Amino acid sequence: MKILVGISLTLAAALAIEALALDEVMLKQANLQPIPKEAKKVLELIDNPNNPLTKEKVELGKKLYFDPRLSKSGLISCNTCHNLSLGGDDNVPVATGHKWRQNPHHLNSPTVYNAVFNSRQFWDGRSPSLEDQATGPIQAPPEMDMRAEDAVKVVTSIPEYKEAFEKVFKGEKITIETIGKAIGAFERTLITPSRYDDYLNGDEDALTSKEKEGLKTFISVGCASCHNGVGLGGGMAPFPAVKPYKYAYIGDFKGDKNGMVKVPTLRNILQTAPYFHNGATYDIKETIFIMGKTQLGKELTDEEIEAIATFFKALDGRKPKIELPMLPTETAETPKPKLN
Amino acid sequence: MKILVGISLTLAAALAIEALALDEVMLKQANLQPIPKEAKKVLELIDNPNNPLTKEKVELGKKLYFDPRLSKSGLISCNTCHNLSLGGDDNVPVATGHKWRQNPHHLNSPTVYNAVFNSRQFWDGRSPSLEDQATGPIQAPPEMDMRAEDAVKVVTSIPEYKEAFEKVFKGEKITIETIGKAIGAFERTLITPSRYDDYLNGDEDALTSKEKEGLKTFISVGCASCHNGVGLGGGMAPFPAVKPYKYAYIGDFKGDKNGMVKVPTLRNILQTAPYFHNGATYDIKETIFIMGKTQLGKELTDEEIEAIATFFKALDGRKPKIELPMLPTETAETPKPKLN
Repeated sequence: MKILVGISLTLAAALAIEALALDEVMLKQANLQPIPKEAKKVLELIDNPNNPLTKEKVELGKKLYFDPRLSKSGLISCNTCHNLSLGGDDNVPVATGHKWRQNPHHLNSPTVYNAVFNSRQFWDGRSPSLEDQATGPIQAPPEMDMRAEDAVKVVTSIPEYKEAFEKVFKGEKITIETIGKAIGAFERTLITPSRYDDYLNGDEDALTSKEKEGLKTFISVGCASCHNGVGLGGGMAPFPAVKPYKYAYIGDFKGDKNGMVKVPTLRNILQTAPYFHNGATYDIKETIFIMGKTQLGKELTDEEIEAIATFFKALDGRKPKIELPMLPTETAETPKPKLN
Repeated sequence: MKILVGISLTLAAALAIEALALDEVMLKQANLQPIPKEAKKVLELIDNPNNPLTKEKVELGKKLYFDPRLSKSGLISCNTCHNLSLGGDDNVPVATGHKWRQNPHHLNSPTVYNAVFNSRQFWDGRSPSLEDQATGPIQAPPEMDMRAEDAVKVVTSIPEYKEAFEKVFKGEKITIETIGKAIGAFERTLITPSRYDDYLNGDEDALTSKEKEGLKTFISVGCASCHNGVGLGGGMAPFPAVKPYKYAYIGDFKGDKNGMVKVPTLRNILQTAPYFHNGATYDIKETIFIMGKTQLGKELTDEEIEAIATFFKALDGRKPKIELPMLPTETAETPKPKLN
């Protein structure tokens, strides 16, 4: 009996090692990387040497992220379209802002969660960093529609903000760029480790067997050729506007100058419908099918689609606890909101 | 020396008591009441016997309060116009909602902080409770513009919400009314004790001497004839639409059937500009002057206005700590947002 148990344990261990080894090779080939377990490694991954994270900067950035007074109307904040209570986005097909204007290229708001892992920001990748990106929507007429000088006036007219900027940015002048740096710093902290990361970090039981199967399918059919790295996306990829499918031209968006488009992160993907740069569908299975067809040239079977969608459940992340910031009160010098 | 000290202490004590006694008589005559110190008394004051507060109900209500999926567009939540990061309101003169529509009566969003102390809700007092009030803006076309049945569908289509409702409301059906009950329960907890309350609760040093002077002026010129009770307002009062002043008719608002209008709370008043039901001015001193003129028939002096505005600083309250709720994910059955 003792010998038998010994043998079967050895067998089980051998099989487990074999299974794990297989996954490791696959994962390595697929260039899939977890959010690390160790806080220090995480910090290395999310920090920006040109805008180092400090507690005060992140706290200031959080306030600005939630402050609708950075918009012309006083009604729209970063959190309106990149809602941290939802999947870090807004659930609507097309970004909608000041005066209910819609993004002229019919673009869908991407999630801010894990956006730090993107190599570039915006759908056409025109921005190199979160710090730079954050200054865009504040000023864009269909979004917050605020003149940079008015955004700066809001901040400089509120003593608590002014003091915080002086403390955080020392001698640096308050500009739309320093506002972007504060907001970008906060956004760098918005990462959501998931069971998928636990698995990649060595916890074999973090995924169900069906999710593991799904991950294998995800890799073997080729999804990871674009959706890879820590972000499971975030790079630039070719952009085939294939007509019979919903992942086609709506509006006049053509990607970057080479026709490339940013690959969305798949982290929290089940919370960030609708899908595609044009928000054309809320159906994750339809989305997987169309991606297989247009990007990989494959008609994925129902079983493959089901397996991949099942794996996506493991990408629902653990969101950071966020205490709602209480914003400092405006003064007589603060620009008044304009609804028109 | 010992005797001298004894005498001067007695004198000081006697003077302090006299000063306190004077204030007490004034405060009593003015019908000014603090938010109590004791948690039990606070609970008695804010609870609704028809919708008793429980931890689970408040937590559910908080989620719904922040959930934009209760609006037709999926972009507007209770917190959009009653922003808890600001003074519990939106800083704009006229409530602005779905499709950028504005309140047809040109009404300003009142603060939700301390609204539990109002005897009635809405500017015309047509709603008897926060629970009832909360169902209004969800359905109002210029606000969240959601059909009641769609709001119910959102809740019933999301398993975590459905379970929470079953737990909180036992056998009760999920309706727009139970949604209102959950939101109302959360709103009841949104109270902000201030230095003014500390003073009324016996801490003589909680107000500066200038603020104490301001409080006396506030009472002696007659402000407290309408701005009284725990809410420093919240009842109904006559509504003189006096033409030369900004506190005059804009839009077609006429108050209730007797021409009465809800008296706004003065708690956090320096955070809730613009003022008046029509949001006609951002200037607190102008507001005090117009109120004196139109409601009390007095031309307040600059000194009186300054004193009252100084007292208002003591009404900036300590806001509750609110952890941003992370909302449960929608399902295929959840109604899709409609931007038009």
